[in-house]
Amino acid sequence: MNVKNNEAVRVTPLGGVGEIGKNMMVLEYDDRMLIIDSGVAFPEDDQLGIDLVIPEFDYVLKNQEKIDGIVVTHGHQDHIGAIPYLLEHISVPVYGPKFALGLLEGQLKEHNLMEKSTLKVVSAGKSVQIGQFTVDFIRVNHSISDTCALAVHTPLGPVVYASDFKFDHTPVDDEKADLQKLAELGSGHPGVLALFSDSTNVEREGYTGSEKDIQESLERIFSGADGRIILATFSSNIHRIQQVVDAAVRHNKKLAIDGRSMENSFETAKKLGYLDAPENLIIDVRDCSNYPDEKVAILTTGSQGEPMAALTRMARGDHYHINVKDSDRIIISASAIPGNEKFIGETINQLYRRGAEVLYEEIADVHVSGHASQEELKLMLNLTDPKYFVPTHGEYRHLYQHAQLAQEAGMPEENTYIADIGDVIEFSRDEVRKIDEVQGGDVLVDGLGIGDVGNIVLRDRQTLSEAGIIIVVLTIDQNGTLLSGPDIITRGFVYIRESEELIEEATKRVEDALKDCEKEGITEWSVLKKTVKDSLKNYIFNKIKRKPMILPIIMQV
Amino acid sequence: MNVKNNEAVRVTPLGGVGEIGKNMMVLEYDDRMLIIDSGVAFPEDDQLGIDLVIPEFDYVLKNQEKIDGIVVTHGHQDHIGAIPYLLEHISVPVYGPKFALGLLEGQLKEHNLMEKSTLKVVSAGKSVQIGQFTVDFIRVNHSISDTCALAVHTPLGPVVYASDFKFDHTPVDDEKADLQKLAELGSGHPGVLALFSDSTNVEREGYTGSEKDIQESLERIFSGADGRIILATFSSNIHRIQQVVDAAVRHNKKLAIDGRSMENSFETAKKLGYLDAPENLIIDVRDCSNYPDEKVAILTTGSQGEPMAALTRMARGDHYHINVKDSDRIIISASAIPGNEKFIGETINQLYRRGAEVLYEEIADVHVSGHASQEELKLMLNLTDPKYFVPTHGEYRHLYQHAQLAQEAGMPEENTYIADIGDVIEFSRDEVRKIDEVQGGDVLVDGLGIGDVGNIVLRDRQTLSEAGIIIVVLTIDQNGTLLSGPDIITRGFVYIRESEELIEEATKRVEDALKDCEKEGITEWSVLKKTVKDSLKNYIFNKIKRKPMILPIIMQV
Repeated sequence: MNVKNNEAVRVTPLGGVGEIGKNMMVLEYDDRMLIIDSGVAFPEDDQLGIDLVIPEFDYVLKNQEKIDGIVVTHGHQDHIGAIPYLLEHISVPVYGPKFALGLLEGQLKEHNLMEKSTLKVVSAGKSVQIGQFTVDFIRVNHSISDTCALAVHTPLGPVVYASDFKFDHTPVDDEKADLQKLAELGSGHPGVLALFSDSTNVEREGYTGSEKDIQESLERIFSGADGRIILATFSSNIHRIQQVVDAAVRHNKKLAIDGRSMENSFETAKKLGYLDAPENLIIDVRDCSNYPDEKVAILTTGSQGEPMAALTRMARGDHYHINVKDSDRIIISASAIPGNEKFIGETINQLYRRGAEVLYEEIADVHVSGHASQEELKLMLNLTDPKYFVPTHGEYRHLYQHAQLAQEAGMPEENTYIADIGDVIEFSRDEVRKIDEVQGGDVLVDGLGIGDVGNIVLRDRQTLSEAGIIIVVLTIDQNGTLLSGPDIITRGFVYIRESEELIEEATKRVEDALKDCEKEGITEWSVLKKTVKDSLKNYIFNKIKRKPMILPIIMQV
Repeated sequence: MNVKNNEAVRVTPLGGVGEIGKNMMVLEYDDRMLIIDSGVAFPEDDQLGIDLVIPEFDYVLKNQEKIDGIVVTHGHQDHIGAIPYLLEHISVPVYGPKFALGLLEGQLKEHNLMEKSTLKVVSAGKSVQIGQFTVDFIRVNHSISDTCALAVHTPLGPVVYASDFKFDHTPVDDEKADLQKLAELGSGHPGVLALFSDSTNVEREGYTGSEKDIQESLERIFSGADGRIILATFSSNIHRIQQVVDAAVRHNKKLAIDGRSMENSFETAKKLGYLDAPENLIIDVRDCSNYPDEKVAILTTGSQGEPMAALTRMARGDHYHINVKDSDRIIISASAIPGNEKFIGETINQLYRRGAEVLYEEIADVHVSGHASQEELKLMLNLTDPKYFVPTHGEYRHLYQHAQLAQEAGMPEENTYIADIGDVIEFSRDEVRKIDEVQGGDVLVDGLGIGDVGNIVLRDRQTLSEAGIIIVVLTIDQNGTLLSGPDIITRGFVYIRESEELIEEATKRVEDALKDCEKEGITEWSVLKKTVKDSLKNYIFNKIKRKPMILPIIMQV
């Protein structure tokens, strides 16, 4: 490190680059640090049994005395979900918009961390001093209320973190993005040092539609309905929920809120003033049948086909209070998070089978994205006119394409940096470059265990999931003479009743292998185990081309 | 069954309705039967470890003496892949287009069934007599060469099975769909009794693009390339391959064929006259480095991100002969089969990381679908003008929407039938109705085992995949006194080194539970086992909220 600490700004992404999810960055200047967001990711298909993935905090823990605070941009799980896990280790204040902190509060309570946490609300348009850092909170639009971009001021110029954003010129809550502030930063002295911007929708040309576009669709959907309306969306999308509330009011329907996260989100948003719903509008989901169908709308979870969510239960026919019928009009007002397509498809199939009308993204205009498309990304670049550019929030292909887009918009290639998790990126007056690499990656959360499941465990789960396990139990005496067994027990392998012959023959192979050992006077456990394992493995593979896990249990008495 | 066998036609789908894949139908008239297609499906996410899914053949096997033949429409796996499994049980001739039978031949050889099989080629535009049935083979367009719709003539009128199709007015091989024949059937006496039509793309408005649209893209891609061109597509898409061949010839490049299925398909297509490639065009993939990069194009497998396919190996950096470099232009000329999105995304990320330029469906016009969109589906309906309509090739939502589309185009609702697998659908002069239900469903193929993996095995694999297994081994004497153990062995559960305390405490719980049993004089195995299992299950769940499989192994000596 040949640049003095106060002549350069360093930013280290600990998540959210080269992946979708668990957004987290550490910004460092003159030996003080600020954490920007700390979110979770959903497990990949090969992370079997894992509930959540959080960033590796090692770098933060090692530097905890340097950290002045955590700043959050909005309340989505991929930006705040890992904060409780972080606050179990470090004690620093968290700054953020009111709605984000409202949602965070609920999670901190679940983790029994609320008492020792300090949450400080900062409104959009305001600045806050955190140690040496002045941080501006700048209104942008997104699929959750109260999203802010950040400008962290440093002597080398402000670092702008665009967060997840789009530019919605007709937002539902009339809170337009603060184009003026972004422009002011862009024309300031010193100008913007670096822009970190959202790559999620970089593959999409043009502009992302306004949230208000949904209003027209909802109007048509509500107007044409003879029966109940059931609408599923993300529980955090308060603008969408507001529009459903408004449509229900306009069409003189009662509205039931279904699903735990929808109830929580609805309540939090109402309490904090982000949602405006008349008292007499809301009914309990258990009371829907007390009203004529055409007077009922239901707002529900399950837009991703999650197995336990309310809409999924309705589709499956095991919802306690709602039986889907053919006069129902059901709207899935969301797009599929990659990996969920099949679950959503199955929910739609089941709802159709129950005779309901189903409207979803592929066949009706019932969703707009919360992320900027190409023209908005260029607008963000040109408003803030940064010296350096780092694409964030995307898999590698998104970051790469966003870097290319920036270059088309005039950003020099050498001022663009495509980051990997753990890169310590240094921005000086002359250049951007990687000066170091710190530990970073996935920490797996499985139940209450954090980090106790790793590659070996996952590899075993993979093997078990593909072909199950065969356990061979036998007892030998000190001379290696078989006293009982070998007994073969299988789980997840084959139907035993259909495969008696296979198991009998397998048992014989193990017996033969053991006899050979006895003849040769082999009594070492490790050799016996290996012999049993290999004889079985080869037999099973040759016979039915499967590779179950094989576990010999040899008892010596 | 109150309609005489010769006064109605019966059709029983054994796959391909309410699902994508394993298309198969049995058509029956006057006690004779014809099988139409017999394909495989890919396993669902919850069918862990399964390689393939084939239709339940029970109904066919029970009626095998009535079957006059198998008719196939085209050579895709979801239409022919289960035929080898069927021919292991029954011996009937297979009729089909030359290319489909060419591909089938390869598979029958692998199953050692070629000698006892009879394959009879029928050209598009021709008819064949199979027992009492006259079957017309009618040219349609699709993403594999030589696809035919079928008209099976019966005294009540022809039954038209549209197969997978689109109407391509500018096909690459100049083999246009036989609109005249379809129209002739539609205007005949008796008119078409029933139409079975492809619902895959029913969600798409308008017309599906022509395969020739790709030519323009390929021209642009080949023209602008300074280095190698690497193109991945489905190996059965001979029209696409022909266009790549043509582009390579036009641009004076050599073409290497990479990946086993691509080589096989290329060879078969060439041999059977479906592919026209000059001899001096093709080079061995090992020889690519002998030519300047700008003279090399590579046609490869891996368009779905399949782990072992050639392009995936290149992306991962473990291909034997091809190292991807930044002058390479790589084209993924395919769309994702649902469920493969993440694999393809990962391949693209890795290729970008190697510096290559990557073009794929989301950002470039490099693929068109092989299935009809809404306007073509209506055209098929109006050309054939059937009395009854059965949507096929789709999940329930597709079938439902296709039925609605047909009704918009004038088909009476009561003449539309949305089928489930196993429905015996009877078409008489007066009505279409379900008269019976036969056994049908998924038979799982896992390695060489067919049908030996069922729900219990899959549920075990699911449990094992989510939290692994804990095995408790102990030895007791006749009085239930513990002689050795309990020893706890885990796989796929936790890192033992990180969780020594947990395992120690768990062992103690088991010991305590056993002591309680001993005190109470309990020596029954089943009770002991349940006690061990429950004590461990409760402890583990309370402690870390996981539910591993728990398997007590109690040896009595």
